[in-house]
Amino acid sequence: MWVTFPGLTRMASDMIVYWGSGSPPCWRILLCLEEKALQGYQQKLLSMEKQEHKSAAVIEINPRGQLPAFRHGEHVINESLGAVLYLENQFKAQGTKLMPEAAAEQAVVLQRMFEVPTLHQKSVSVIMYTWIVPEAERHESAVTRNKQALGEELKLWEGYLAKLGSGSYIAGKNFTLADVVFFPNLAFCFRFGLSYDKYPHLSAYYSLVKERPSVQASWPPHWKESDGAQEVLKDI
Amino acid sequence: MWVTFPGLTRMASDMIVYWGSGSPPCWRILLCLEEKALQGYQQKLLSMEKQEHKSAAVIEINPRGQLPAFRHGEHVINESLGAVLYLENQFKAQGTKLMPEAAAEQAVVLQRMFEVPTLHQKSVSVIMYTWIVPEAERHESAVTRNKQALGEELKLWEGYLAKLGSGSYIAGKNFTLADVVFFPNLAFCFRFGLSYDKYPHLSAYYSLVKERPSVQASWPPHWKESDGAQEVLKDI
Repeated sequence: MWVTFPGLTRMASDMIVYWGSGSPPCWRILLCLEEKALQGYQQKLLSMEKQEHKSAAVIEINPRGQLPAFRHGEHVINESLGAVLYLENQFKAQGTKLMPEAAAEQAVVLQRMFEVPTLHQKSVSVIMYTWIVPEAERHESAVTRNKQALGEELKLWEGYLAKLGSGSYIAGKNFTLADVVFFPNLAFCFRFGLSYDKYPHLSAYYSLVKERPSVQASWPPHWKESDGAQEVLKDI
Repeated sequence: MWVTFPGLTRMASDMIVYWGSGSPPCWRILLCLEEKALQGYQQKLLSMEKQEHKSAAVIEINPRGQLPAFRHGEHVINESLGAVLYLENQFKAQGTKLMPEAAAEQAVVLQRMFEVPTLHQKSVSVIMYTWIVPEAERHESAVTRNKQALGEELKLWEGYLAKLGSGSYIAGKNFTLADVVFFPNLAFCFRFGLSYDKYPHLSAYYSLVKERPSVQASWPPHWKESDGAQEVLKDI
């Protein structure tokens, strides 16, 4: 167990993250910076509605014009999965230890961590359907298929937690990079109406992790201002 | 520079990979096993046409019924990005060193490595369009948009190599995990008709990496039997 002493924490004023509120990939980086106690990082909340992610400041770091855009000194790592691995590798002895060394534990963390993009893609394909697909190309059959795929995906994750037992994190008894990557996507699903009752293990996990100071410190600001009365996922 | 001595290599008979010929995620794992000199790993080539990836042996390891399915002893890591990180972490001192320690180099390797899923998704959305999208949901407008997005994506990668200069690997002067992840996707694009002339830096990189013994040892068997006379990507 790593313990952080104020005198040992590294100031992170040479880090900057451009982010959008509620975007799971952005949230992963903020959550990781908090868990690693990288105090004093610079951050800039941008409005995707106002197309601020297409600004010159972002394009300079991330030529795709996407958020997050993340820089540590001269080092650019915009891809959230790469950024959190980088932060853990470079600041191993600071804040929460997020990657176990032992093969058995490491295998589970890496497997779960890299399953999340599948959950992300499947949830986005339902939640953002009308944003992603032009009106003339939308089909009820695709909506139905996407919803079914998301339901199957969520059942897998519910099953992982059921097997681990109550009070577990997503890859075992410790909070790891797998949680840093997974939690924002799960919160995203609940925000858009996923049933707490239908997924009791995911709900219990959500309640557990939600209370972490790192999660509270990085909670999407616009989620505090309005209820997630969205019902897109209510029948998943 | 790591040098492998036969007496020091670890036999990998406790590893098994189920794979499909020509699948970039499968190829990444095979390529990594070869680079890490993990001799004697077990492997089973399955036919996706015959739905062998839905067999009980695969589902037992990978509940999504997808390839690759990879197991090291009792440790399961099916996600190719997770599997190659695991192999590098667990066998650092064997075979090719695939992840630099220094922050500047590591940042580039991680950034490039995790940009590849975007290239993968964009190339699959063009190459596999008729496999993925049911006939009643296909639109010429979507095909055009997907092709344009893939062209823009490939220009980014062409630009990375142009900036690095001739003889470079995708993240700098050494062959790394970024190449293990990227090369199979690039080869996939050339197989499906991407122009060598239009992307001279990607072509030169392809010729360079293609000759590595690890790449030759893991080359998709059915690509040896027939020319990739496919022209899907010829106008990208």
